[in-house]
Amino acid sequence: TEKMKEKAVELLNMVVKIGRDDPRRILHSIKVGLALTLVSVFYYVNPLFNGFGTSAMWAVLTVVVVMEFTVGGTLGKGLNRTFATLLAGALGLGAHYVAVLGGERGEPILLGIFVFILAAAATFSRFVPEIKARYDYGVTITILTFSLVAVSSYRVEEMIQMAHQRLSTIALGVAACLVTSMFVFPVWAGEDLHKLTAANLDKLASFFEGLGAQYFEEKMGSGNLDGSSFLQVHKSVLNSKATEDSLANFARWEPGHGKFSFRHPWTQYLKIGAHSRQCAYSLEALAVYITTSDKSQASRDTELHQRIRSACAEMSRESGKALAELASAIRNMTSPPASASHHVANALVAAGKLKHAMPAGDLQDAVVPLHDVLRLATSAS
Amino acid sequence: TEKMKEKAVELLNMVVKIGRDDPRRILHSIKVGLALTLVSVFYYVNPLFNGFGTSAMWAVLTVVVVMEFTVGGTLGKGLNRTFATLLAGALGLGAHYVAVLGGERGEPILLGIFVFILAAAATFSRFVPEIKARYDYGVTITILTFSLVAVSSYRVEEMIQMAHQRLSTIALGVAACLVTSMFVFPVWAGEDLHKLTAANLDKLASFFEGLGAQYFEEKMGSGNLDGSSFLQVHKSVLNSKATEDSLANFARWEPGHGKFSFRHPWTQYLKIGAHSRQCAYSLEALAVYITTSDKSQASRDTELHQRIRSACAEMSRESGKALAELASAIRNMTSPPASASHHVANALVAAGKLKHAMPAGDLQDAVVPLHDVLRLATSAS
Repeated sequence: TEKMKEKAVELLNMVVKIGRDDPRRILHSIKVGLALTLVSVFYYVNPLFNGFGTSAMWAVLTVVVVMEFTVGGTLGKGLNRTFATLLAGALGLGAHYVAVLGGERGEPILLGIFVFILAAAATFSRFVPEIKARYDYGVTITILTFSLVAVSSYRVEEMIQMAHQRLSTIALGVAACLVTSMFVFPVWAGEDLHKLTAANLDKLASFFEGLGAQYFEEKMGSGNLDGSSFLQVHKSVLNSKATEDSLANFARWEPGHGKFSFRHPWTQYLKIGAHSRQCAYSLEALAVYITTSDKSQASRDTELHQRIRSACAEMSRESGKALAELASAIRNMTSPPASASHHVANALVAAGKLKHAMPAGDLQDAVVPLHDVLRLATSAS
Repeated sequence: TEKMKEKAVELLNMVVKIGRDDPRRILHSIKVGLALTLVSVFYYVNPLFNGFGTSAMWAVLTVVVVMEFTVGGTLGKGLNRTFATLLAGALGLGAHYVAVLGGERGEPILLGIFVFILAAAATFSRFVPEIKARYDYGVTITILTFSLVAVSSYRVEEMIQMAHQRLSTIALGVAACLVTSMFVFPVWAGEDLHKLTAANLDKLASFFEGLGAQYFEEKMGSGNLDGSSFLQVHKSVLNSKATEDSLANFARWEPGHGKFSFRHPWTQYLKIGAHSRQCAYSLEALAVYITTSDKSQASRDTELHQRIRSACAEMSRESGKALAELASAIRNMTSPPASASHHVANALVAAGKLKHAMPAGDLQDAVVPLHDVLRLATSAS
């Protein structure tokens, strides 16, 4: 029981950590529980639906599958589900009509051919990146509904009645999901993307600032930088692509909210993100160099080294300031202030000094992406 | 109609391109169509199942949802589906038993509470990264099945009969998927991961080789390198993390196949991947530097520059060779040959020469990850 206690404490700690990292996760779990309970109990209690075991099932199924963490995710799945069901239902009915013409022997063969063609074509369409990103769930539902409708052995009149029932059930499920996700502590993917972009720029800024303040200014070689936090701060930017892509995809489904209109240029964030990563790659190369380079060499304190170092420090500081201002400009959705270009100009002057002092510089490449970021930030906000 | 023709040609070109990039995609589409048609027609034709409209539905549903591109993906989803259904069904029956004790008024309330607790807890568990990676689908199915069973208004005896039927239907669907995905042109995630890892090392190798042969050896400044292909070759390595992670996840489900045993150390590939990316980051920084640096400066042809350049060329060539040998060692699953370490040693000698010629080198940081890659490759294969 000692061991079990330990395990339990470990589990609890993990739960607390996950919840503390993002408290909206707890709210989301409660929201899913709530939506599902409402739909379940509604069907359980309502005497009208006592006979319709299958209908209740579709509502529950819809809620379980459609409810996502962000509003955009829920909306995207809900719309995919609704429209795919409509489309595939109509197609399935059509296939049914045609197959009946084949007579008793031809009917199953024709149906088999139809199902095969639709399933193969739809599965193939998922390899198209745009369809995969936005309509993947809709394609699944299309195959599913078409097969169910085409193969069901009901008569056409019965099927139309069933379709009506099925659609209204799904609509009810989708509505329950949308209401809970949009009006009860909504999590907007667009807002998350917006904040993530600014936060990533801030991380790059603090790397530069740390570089200027700790690495170049302090006596090199005296301080041990291996544990310095600024050398780690950019790590999460390196692999941000997947998160940004999916957030941008969700954001495109979302209606206007807060400071964002419906057709907010979300793809611009992806461009800023790409440039941030570009910059992070350079910083990562630099960080590896700093942590692995020969410490003993650094203690040489010639006048040349002094000059190089002060130029580098200047450059890092100014780059950091410029990035921080860009981040806050994005956050507040204003154009970047003139002082940002001012800092970039300063950084370039420092880089020029550096070039005169040294034939080839480690840092030059780190500054280059800065221009692009600046250009893009201007166009985005 | 002119326009429509154009669109049609465009569409056809895209289809051909997707198919040519990976012909297994076409096979996969056909396999999905085949599995689905078999199951559909089986239920449609079989007189035994004429009454069980719902059963047929579950088989179709299973096939549509479980069938994935790789064997590992299909196996993972199939096992998740089967065990989650079993577990949640048992839990749901238990909840039903307990709720009945609450009397006519207490029953729906108790059921509502149970559904809420299970749905909220299960949804929360999805935020645990390990569960998200391996059991996400199982969690969905658990919520779904539990709600359906708990809320259904059948008597317990009927439910057990239903459960029996449902489980056998799902098992049939899963079996159909597994047979088609394992025995008809199987796509093994493990093999894909293996090939991807080696291919990524090869890409890094050709970057280094291009660097040595084109950038440092040729008269700098004379050739225009902007369009050089070696400066692009590492790009796909930069964002390979998501693909590698998901392939490794799928690979863990797969039974032994070909050269791979069941408990092949797939996580080692992720480590090699991480080091490859690390190296790619440095190369990216270098590529940005090369494409944006001042061309006019490069034409200075002092003796110092000559010496630096030949050392860099040597270093790049040797690094490239070492990486290429590592890649082929991984591909053939042998330990890296002694010549690989030999090349690394040569590269380090060249780096040493460089250090003597220049106070701070762009390239030093690019070589560092090489050691780690070597160390890891040894342990993995």
